[in-house]
Amino acid sequence: MEQIQLNLPLRGIIVPMITPLLDRDTLDSDGLGRLIEHILAGGVDGLFILGTTGEAPSLSYRLRDELIEHTCRKVAARVPVLVGITDTAFVESVRIANKAKDAGARAVVLAPPYYFPAGQPELVEYLRHLVPELPLPLFLYNMPSHTKLVFEPDTVRAAMDIPGIVGLKDSSGKMAYFHLLQTLLKDRPDFTLLVGPEELLSETVLLGGHGGVNGGANLWPQLYVDLYNAARAKNLPVVSSLHEKVMEISSTIYSVGRHQSSYLKGLKCALSCLDICSDFMAEPFHCFRAKERRRIQHHLKTLGLPSYKPGKYEKPNH
Amino acid sequence: MEQIQLNLPLRGIIVPMITPLLDRDTLDSDGLGRLIEHILAGGVDGLFILGTTGEAPSLSYRLRDELIEHTCRKVAARVPVLVGITDTAFVESVRIANKAKDAGARAVVLAPPYYFPAGQPELVEYLRHLVPELPLPLFLYNMPSHTKLVFEPDTVRAAMDIPGIVGLKDSSGKMAYFHLLQTLLKDRPDFTLLVGPEELLSETVLLGGHGGVNGGANLWPQLYVDLYNAARAKNLPVVSSLHEKVMEISSTIYSVGRHQSSYLKGLKCALSCLDICSDFMAEPFHCFRAKERRRIQHHLKTLGLPSYKPGKYEKPNH
Amino acid sequence: MEQIQLNLPLRGIIVPMITPLLDRDTLDSDGLGRLIEHILAGGVDGLFILGTTGEAPSLSYRLRDELIEHTCRKVAARVPVLVGITDTAFVESVRIANKAKDAGARAVVLAPPYYFPAGQPELVEYLRHLVPELPLPLFLYNMPSHTKLVFEPDTVRAAMDIPGIVGLKDSSGKMAYFHLLQTLLKDRPDFTLLVGPEELLSETVLLGGHGGVNGGANLWPQLYVDLYNAARAKNLPVVSSLHEKVMEISSTIYSVGRHQSSYLKGLKCALSCLDICSDFMAEPFHCFRAKERRRIQHHLKTLGLPSYKPGKYEKPNH
Amino acid sequence: MEQIQLNLPLRGIIVPMITPLLDRDTLDSDGLGRLIEHILAGGVDGLFILGTTGEAPSLSYRLRDELIEHTCRKVAARVPVLVGITDTAFVESVRIANKAKDAGARAVVLAPPYYFPAGQPELVEYLRHLVPELPLPLFLYNMPSHTKLVFEPDTVRAAMDIPGIVGLKDSSGKMAYFHLLQTLLKDRPDFTLLVGPEELLSETVLLGGHGGVNGGANLWPQLYVDLYNAARAKNLPVVSSLHEKVMEISSTIYSVGRHQSSYLKGLKCALSCLDICSDFMAEPFHCFRAKERRRIQHHLKTLGLPSYKPGKYEKPNH
Repeated sequence: MEQIQLNLPLRGIIVPMITPLLDRDTLDSDGLGRLIEHILAGGVDGLFILGTTGEAPSLSYRLRDELIEHTCRKVAARVPVLVGITDTAFVESVRIANKAKDAGARAVVLAPPYYFPAGQPELVEYLRHLVPELPLPLFLYNMPSHTKLVFEPDTVRAAMDIPGIVGLKDSSGKMAYFHLLQTLLKDRPDFTLLVGPEELLSETVLLGGHGGVNGGANLWPQLYVDLYNAARAKNLPVVSSLHEKVMEISSTIYSVGRHQSSYLKGLKCALSCLDICSDFMAEPFHCFRAKERRRIQHHLKTLGLPSYKPGKYEKPNH
Repeated sequence: MEQIQLNLPLRGIIVPMITPLLDRDTLDSDGLGRLIEHILAGGVDGLFILGTTGEAPSLSYRLRDELIEHTCRKVAARVPVLVGITDTAFVESVRIANKAKDAGARAVVLAPPYYFPAGQPELVEYLRHLVPELPLPLFLYNMPSHTKLVFEPDTVRAAMDIPGIVGLKDSSGKMAYFHLLQTLLKDRPDFTLLVGPEELLSETVLLGGHGGVNGGANLWPQLYVDLYNAARAKNLPVVSSLHEKVMEISSTIYSVGRHQSSYLKGLKCALSCLDICSDFMAEPFHCFRAKERRRIQHHLKTLGLPSYKPGKYEKPNH
Repeated sequence: MEQIQLNLPLRGIIVPMITPLLDRDTLDSDGLGRLIEHILAGGVDGLFILGTTGEAPSLSYRLRDELIEHTCRKVAARVPVLVGITDTAFVESVRIANKAKDAGARAVVLAPPYYFPAGQPELVEYLRHLVPELPLPLFLYNMPSHTKLVFEPDTVRAAMDIPGIVGLKDSSGKMAYFHLLQTLLKDRPDFTLLVGPEELLSETVLLGGHGGVNGGANLWPQLYVDLYNAARAKNLPVVSSLHEKVMEISSTIYSVGRHQSSYLKGLKCALSCLDICSDFMAEPFHCFRAKERRRIQHHLKTLGLPSYKPGKYEKPNH
Repeated sequence: MEQIQLNLPLRGIIVPMITPLLDRDTLDSDGLGRLIEHILAGGVDGLFILGTTGEAPSLSYRLRDELIEHTCRKVAARVPVLVGITDTAFVESVRIANKAKDAGARAVVLAPPYYFPAGQPELVEYLRHLVPELPLPLFLYNMPSHTKLVFEPDTVRAAMDIPGIVGLKDSSGKMAYFHLLQTLLKDRPDFTLLVGPEELLSETVLLGGHGGVNGGANLWPQLYVDLYNAARAKNLPVVSSLHEKVMEISSTIYSVGRHQSSYLKGLKCALSCLDICSDFMAEPFHCFRAKERRRIQHHLKTLGLPSYKPGKYEKPNH
């Protein structure tokens, strides 16, 4: 199997890939191929599958395995593939990690187990038990809105003494936390710090963070790559202009629905409007209906998305 | 396969069974046998496996299947077995439900999918899709502290029009919610309403609720059965006296640790002190160490638990 | 000044009186008189002014003083008057307490200061400093939904060693907390434990609590007094029937609006429909408009409220 | 009375001044004078009194009035003074605003009323009633951790149509919210957007925000002014270096205690170590004891605070 090096710290735009589905247990395999090519054409630095944006917890294990295999094969080592192994069951996390390793992924990503509210010492002990069993380097994934549990700064410090943990992706949306981690980790320049919400990509990179794991890069990879490069180069006028574009996506495409799922529904709907893949969503969500879809199409047009052309995945009003 | 009728509404004490483990993926099969006999000897009305007290989300699917089979076989239709099918993945919930049906269980129990924060209309739609695929009657399980999501009263009303939903277990701890459901469901006397926290069993039954799904009944089944019977018979002096005993368990056995896991750790530790089964806990938790164990032993003695005798599962100080 | 004894523990129905207003800084003095007579005619055991139901934090200090004076004068020692002194400023709490003492009130009621999120040790120290400065016995008021802060059981234990604290009103809605306090305070039979939400009055009294501080007793004092007496007498059939009536009020009168303010708006609107007092509400709330008012009138009719007759406080559709 | 113009948008560093106290109801008047000179010497653009950092809700109204007068007199129009009028009582907010106007303040600052959890439409209506009664321009203050209530973006849009609202200070710590407001307000370049947490000052200004209301500027005003200027000038190397210093303060001075009050206690303690003013804190807080004070002194030394010299406000171990 060909391999691509995982350079640490991992820098740039890592795309938290959506999972194209035909129905709740069937991969949209063609869509997946188109999506991967669409994303890689943007010059991104990595692909992260089975995260929140990938609806991982909503997918059957069978489908998760299938997605790992297909993705790794189609990516063919052009960029590193990272695989989410977050699970409430220790044994299943290890199993998926092994699957990822076998398929050629380069790292795994783990949020805290998300059913039982654990204490921080319990979380540290969990990591001490789990990480030695993983066959790939691990990124922690801070996602308190979904897991109810924060990787507190002291826990991150303790985690750093566990060999195998190489970075952290923060989706808390709290930059004071992110900057505090940067301060605490000053002596560990190889430890990767990535930010989740794309609205925070500019400042993350301007102030020394390593990059972003931004959902919008499914839709418009080049935009996020350009923004990352401009921020890395400290080219503030370009950063400001591209940051505005990112905010425009956020305040339009992600703001159509009523529920917290609007981000995910909007993103999948937009990709379907662009004929890249199906917008089917795993339960407990469902794709946007015709009315919301028209609003997404309108927003895409206004955004002037390069390749915008509605088509094949178009649906009748249902 | 022998069968036992599931009479609706389901009344009495349904025990949310802990899962005896030898290590994180090995069932304590002997302990399971002793535990089941211990529980059934108390005269309980049902067994609920793979709930929160059963640590279901922390167990591998393989182990969950094994537990379903062993339990149903050992119970041998003496009481109805209910099986938790709560899962973030729709497909896995259906799979476990089928497994439960095949093994002889009589009903399944479902909390909302607990990773993505869904809106109430999304939750209703989820139920409309899921319930028709289930081969057994379904009890809803309201558990917002762990799932982040409440079955709002309007959602419960909507759910009642879905054939197959036969009751609800409320573990919110909010009796105003419980009483509101009783009011809304006045015209559906067959719809079962059970309460989770045992501290609320007395009032639930005194005020017309059908019973409790109380963890302490793993430890001392007779106590909860007696309390249920006294409350059903409106014998208030006995209710008061047994309620005090239940509160004594709650304020001692469940209050030894620092974290939210104290309830579960205390319960498993106590069962191990009584030589019923191992106190191994699935990640992200671990059993009490020697110091906490001594406090549990002390509390058991003070409680005068009928069969108290520390022994085989005793551990060296580690 | 005539006095009425404050017998401890304080038992029965203490009415958390709404504050009748003509506009945001003008007392509806006539309405206040009618309301007090309406409430006292129901046989209640005490009046609690300047609580949450009394909109205390929304009133100017001048108006709070005026309300204390008017109420104490009009009540004329027929029942004990309790006065809320909850405030973010220590000095203002003491000042109101002195005002209450001078006017003839018999006790004061205190929730934690509610702007800064304090730790439990900070809360204990605050009580140790405050209570010695108060001229009247103090009831603690647990109201986490509004104050963000719980009186944790250990804090209540510590508070009991401070002379002057004579009881606690729990509006958390969590009966497991209430029962835990009952267990912890077994050795202090004089320490009063009252429940806030009227939906929980039945079980509170059936299981040994001393009574309720229930908003609905503004509207229908006799109902709550009868329920208290039935529960105290352990007359379960009557308890069940009156509890159902209480739940009917809760699920109709308090459930008309969209926001958390529905309870308060519904209660004031109902009192205005019954011609008892104005339904003006202090900012940030406003009274129900015509549409909601019609629904309240409909609910009152269905409830068959004894003295129901819409009239003087009727408003044109605005 | 001399006046200083309030230029809009208001740019730069506005210092949320701590309130120097000798005891819970006595202003440290000498300390206040020294503090004001210390702050103004740093070249700041405004002073904001009676905010969260100023412990406003914990102060008696008498003391708040005194502070307004003393501060305005001592500042003597060298910078604009902004006065917090946040209150649960509408009438008191208006009263303080008038007091502020009379004393020569240039603007007022308002967080939502913080006892009752209001809905967004209720909040908009509250603003529509309140703002016309205010004699000074108003800045909204988003502070959900203390008020439980967010100014949702739609509410901010609605508020902008109310004449008199000129800006917003965001202390939510959520930069995605801040950036979203920037996007929504693109057509209103005069509407001021300031950030509260100093950890977020760099990115705020780099990405077009108008400045910060940062507590640390009480301690080291020059640092924050320099950082603001560097960010405004898009001088990224200087921004990075000063941002690191700000983070060092945050991770040391503000992180000594156990509770959420650590920020405030650390800040006041540090000012007392520098002999600027007393560190007495209003209830429910208290100043750091000797042990924590020694840690603050150590941190100050490590930070190399320009004027560091412990002295007069030094205390014996108590």
